[in-house]
Amino acid sequence: MSDAPIAIFDSGVGGLTVAAAIAKRLPNERLVYLGDTARLPYGTKSAETVTRYAVQATRALMRFEPKMIVIACNTASAVALPVLTAAYGSTPVVGVVEPGARAAVAASRGGTIAVIATEGTVRGGAYVRAIHALKPDAKVVQRACPLFVALAEEGWTDGPVPELAAEKYLKDIFASADSPDTLVLGCTHFPILVGPIAKAVGANVTLVDSAATTAREVETILDDRNLRRTGPNQKPTFLGTDAPERFARAGSLFLGSQIAPDQVELIDLAP
Amino acid sequence: MSDAPIAIFDSGVGGLTVAAAIAKRLPNERLVYLGDTARLPYGTKSAETVTRYAVQATRALMRFEPKMIVIACNTASAVALPVLTAAYGSTPVVGVVEPGARAAVAASRGGTIAVIATEGTVRGGAYVRAIHALKPDAKVVQRACPLFVALAEEGWTDGPVPELAAEKYLKDIFASADSPDTLVLGCTHFPILVGPIAKAVGANVTLVDSAATTAREVETILDDRNLRRTGPNQKPTFLGTDAPERFARAGSLFLGSQIAPDQVELIDLAP
Repeated sequence: MSDAPIAIFDSGVGGLTVAAAIAKRLPNERLVYLGDTARLPYGTKSAETVTRYAVQATRALMRFEPKMIVIACNTASAVALPVLTAAYGSTPVVGVVEPGARAAVAASRGGTIAVIATEGTVRGGAYVRAIHALKPDAKVVQRACPLFVALAEEGWTDGPVPELAAEKYLKDIFASADSPDTLVLGCTHFPILVGPIAKAVGANVTLVDSAATTAREVETILDDRNLRRTGPNQKPTFLGTDAPERFARAGSLFLGSQIAPDQVELIDLAP
Repeated sequence: MSDAPIAIFDSGVGGLTVAAAIAKRLPNERLVYLGDTARLPYGTKSAETVTRYAVQATRALMRFEPKMIVIACNTASAVALPVLTAAYGSTPVVGVVEPGARAAVAASRGGTIAVIATEGTVRGGAYVRAIHALKPDAKVVQRACPLFVALAEEGWTDGPVPELAAEKYLKDIFASADSPDTLVLGCTHFPILVGPIAKAVGANVTLVDSAATTAREVETILDDRNLRRTGPNQKPTFLGTDAPERFARAGSLFLGSQIAPDQVELIDLAP
């Protein structure tokens, strides 16, 4: 069982930032990554639709008999985690929202925390609930930043366009005297825009990205269940629902290492 | 039969710029508009996937027994028009690419034409083929501008962010001595960004948007077949595959008039 892979899924390639953090922390683990690229983005879709897609993605990953499922997508974590936990109870299911909330609460000195995410994550309020569950008197400010997704996918991660976009989205939140001291990057696309975001919010704000804390959570669960793999390193398996070339090209940016188009298996998630 | 509606579909709400042009030119016509908002964008998806989606959308629209089908999406027009024409031959099917190409050829004095569109439309090369069919010696330059879609949907249609994005995408194409004198806005989202785009390319370039020319084509076909409706004006019918509130909010921007969320019927296009 410890030799079984860790299955990771996301609406697209953004979740590869989470896969990269897991691979870095747990280099012996086998990873299977599914990006539902035909149906991205999830962030603008309704909770019902995202939940249905998440169930289909998880079902497709079960053929690899994984020892754990990681929802490397904030929107899907925010809405589908309870359903997936109920459906696949014997396999641990980890989302990125709780680890991100935990890191934010640990980082915040003043107790005012800002969360930037997709429209779907903001509307669902999962970060607000997760932060309040840990620290009921925390003040949480949310903002949807959908353009960051497009900028990240286009690879425009520095220069005036992302800097001005970050300023437009964030300036007013961080302008007041009691402004947040911590900013949660509540979308797996956002870590690669960390430069422009940091510039817009200023040096006194701690940026929290859930990739690293999710990797730590994965490690803890494996250790608790004695499921760490010790075999030699293996290349990850990549699955996409559309356009392998685009998956490889955009995905390489998020993974931080090169993916070849022929490494991406095209699968169909139709019900 | 002349009382039957004109059915229009797009991946989302961008095609409402085409619907608005048809409504303006043909105010007596009944319009049924379907936006496949659950599966947008089409522009990053493969030709096979887009064709499958276009067939499903057209099938859903056939229950309104339309007298004409308008593909108000450049990506779908570029890849799915032949399949739809073959499948629904008795009902005329109109795309936006040919009308846009015709307008561009008519507007260009020097014969060098630039086309900006989504990745899917550019990769498919439909505009290049359509322009060369009309003017074999035309020189066509293409560029994919995916960020424009996100900017249009976010409503950031003026100010420094879209202006700098337009400059980044377009400056080099229009910098040389023999640069294009005509620019085709080959995506239904782009007309609302006409301000920043015009500023980036300069006053000597004619911008062509296929909404108006597609509306003229629709009129010509109705006249040829004696299918013009003469009854009193009726409100359009809006169908979406996800999130009616978002459809109404973003759609109002593209239609140029207010849509209420309860005017949008939620339908399922699953096969």
